[in-house]
Amino acid sequence: MPLAQRLDQVETSAIRELFKLLGKPGIISFAGGFPDSAMFDVAGIRQAVNAALEQEPGGALQYGATEGYQPLREQLAAFMRAKGVRDLAPEQLIVTTGSQQALDLLGKCLVDPGSKAIVEGPTFLATIQCFRLYGADLVSAPIDGDGVRVDELERLIREHRPRFVYLIPTFGNPSGAMLSLERRRRVLELAVQYQTLVIEDDPYGDLYFDAPPPPSLLALSAEVPGSRDWLVHCGSLSKVLSPGLRVGWLVAPPELLAKATMCKQFSDAHTSTFAQATAAQYLAGGHMPATLARVREVYGRRAGVMGEALRRELGPAIDFVPPRGGLFVWARLTGAGGKLADGNAFARKAIEQGVAFVPGVPFYCANPDPSTLRLSFATADEDRIREGIARLARALD
Amino acid sequence: MPLAQRLDQVETSAIRELFKLLGKPGIISFAGGFPDSAMFDVAGIRQAVNAALEQEPGGALQYGATEGYQPLREQLAAFMRAKGVRDLAPEQLIVTTGSQQALDLLGKCLVDPGSKAIVEGPTFLATIQCFRLYGADLVSAPIDGDGVRVDELERLIREHRPRFVYLIPTFGNPSGAMLSLERRRRVLELAVQYQTLVIEDDPYGDLYFDAPPPPSLLALSAEVPGSRDWLVHCGSLSKVLSPGLRVGWLVAPPELLAKATMCKQFSDAHTSTFAQATAAQYLAGGHMPATLARVREVYGRRAGVMGEALRRELGPAIDFVPPRGGLFVWARLTGAGGKLADGNAFARKAIEQGVAFVPGVPFYCANPDPSTLRLSFATADEDRIREGIARLARALD
Repeated sequence: MPLAQRLDQVETSAIRELFKLLGKPGIISFAGGFPDSAMFDVAGIRQAVNAALEQEPGGALQYGATEGYQPLREQLAAFMRAKGVRDLAPEQLIVTTGSQQALDLLGKCLVDPGSKAIVEGPTFLATIQCFRLYGADLVSAPIDGDGVRVDELERLIREHRPRFVYLIPTFGNPSGAMLSLERRRRVLELAVQYQTLVIEDDPYGDLYFDAPPPPSLLALSAEVPGSRDWLVHCGSLSKVLSPGLRVGWLVAPPELLAKATMCKQFSDAHTSTFAQATAAQYLAGGHMPATLARVREVYGRRAGVMGEALRRELGPAIDFVPPRGGLFVWARLTGAGGKLADGNAFARKAIEQGVAFVPGVPFYCANPDPSTLRLSFATADEDRIREGIARLARALD
Repeated sequence: MPLAQRLDQVETSAIRELFKLLGKPGIISFAGGFPDSAMFDVAGIRQAVNAALEQEPGGALQYGATEGYQPLREQLAAFMRAKGVRDLAPEQLIVTTGSQQALDLLGKCLVDPGSKAIVEGPTFLATIQCFRLYGADLVSAPIDGDGVRVDELERLIREHRPRFVYLIPTFGNPSGAMLSLERRRRVLELAVQYQTLVIEDDPYGDLYFDAPPPPSLLALSAEVPGSRDWLVHCGSLSKVLSPGLRVGWLVAPPELLAKATMCKQFSDAHTSTFAQATAAQYLAGGHMPATLARVREVYGRRAGVMGEALRRELGPAIDFVPPRGGLFVWARLTGAGGKLADGNAFARKAIEQGVAFVPGVPFYCANPDPSTLRLSFATADEDRIREGIARLARALD
């Protein structure tokens, strides 16, 4: 059977193989990239779906506009405005089937075979694969604890003149890093200066633990003249409310938004109106602030416990910046004391000890740092986190 | 802003412009391609979603497997087996975000720029656009009242050696035609003989009015040795239960199904588990037979009323095969009595008279027949259908 050549660009991820091992009984997993099911506001969502079916059964069950269910677009625009995005009209966003679909639509609209695009090294694995399926030639921009290094980013933009730069500026997956305010401004200036599209993927920004992060690039664009014309923003309810709804959104300049809408029409017609009407009712019901406060508090405590346990149990053998939000600790094995410094080997030994995480290599599109690993603190409770890190320490010995 | 070249292949559909006129007050629309909202089993769906949130809140709200929510895959496999598909295991299908996404995944997996593919002339508009976005060079196979003409189809396969043949064999959109049993066998034989993939899109097969249609190509493949290896089947709950759920499914040979799953992972991760768990509960609750009986009866009556009114009001000026299922009457203006024979011009005059339909030209990927038009009988009640056809007659005078 002849298959399209684009499939040659991508392989099923190495992580999938690892995940198959997670079914082992008793294993403690720090491997997931998902929120804790126990945190879902089931009662609130049930109330929302029943309200939707009561008040607007046609809207919730019939075909809908490709752009999205209008009451949800209005709620999402208001949600974004409350986070400091000035003057965002509902017509400036479309609803997508999770933010993953926003990435797919952007790939479809922007990437020709061989097109250059810059992503962070490391970045979200499914972004790499998604863009490569459209033939993207990805360039890796280095990061540090404050997010992408803007001096290197400028150099790479000048060298490669990419179709776009893709960033997860706030509590990125896998890095957990928070791009500093100063760098955010610089990224927007670079977008204008080099007339280069910047895609801000922001599924984690609401999950801060203490102080809120700096404004999103989208919010900040009001302060950098011209930058809004070069800015794309992807949002999602997956990490804060429920991934199962598959509700995300895409904000983009009008021409690109129109093309993305056209592509979406032929990708899945529209996002489930059943899920959209439920999300709209949930947001309209005012449940979100309490839900966010709850998840921030729980994840913040778990992050703290994991950080302390890592310092205590692994000491100088591991290096990391304590995350200020999100779901992940991104760490580097130092090799101190002659201990293991390879993430892949460590992952195998960890499984033997009954604990799982994802080694860092697959998150790089190029030049991987083999000493890295990603640990999620989201899905295990505090005791399990302590026990899991103790197992990690045994695996490293 | 540089956009991907693939976007040059496709334009926003002419139909969209027409649809903007549908908001005119008092207009009777035969233009839609959707079921009647009044037919939705709101109570049954509400019961299903509440059961899902009660019994499996994690499954309904968390990330899920890209292949689909396992209880739904089991229900869908059983649903297909009940329709005569022997030995269909849940693992032989994946759940898609409506059958539109199945088409998108097939395009992604099978179409390189310039790849030939054969579709019916006329065929589903969004199929044409979807495949063209991947660069397909579409070839139009002529149809008659019994569906695609298999002699012509064989000739075109020999000439073009396409990547695949795409058919809507049962009550197709827009043709409403039902491929005869004899031709179904022949299509399967051609698939084997020329080692050519055949895609059967089957969203309407359950909407028959009197006798059931011949078995689907998928069901019939058991009788044509080797044909199952060359057969893809797309199913959907959109026309029979609710389009808003966005639940469809894809059956394909194992290698292709694996590739489609990989592409889906990077397209939208998975179909809404919220919608999938609801659909699974609905099917498990045994509601479907009664729902199907109800929609068949109502649409059957409406189809009959439309057919009679067309004969009575437009007489020899219009020619059509009364549909035996589905949502559409596909008709041709004959020009008899010196009347209008152009579908586009007729559509404009009809709007002036307060009735809308879709002219046939956009449904052809090549060699359109300008005398054709598509009338949906699904969404207007019987009195409105009679009144709408009377308006059509005035528009034709």
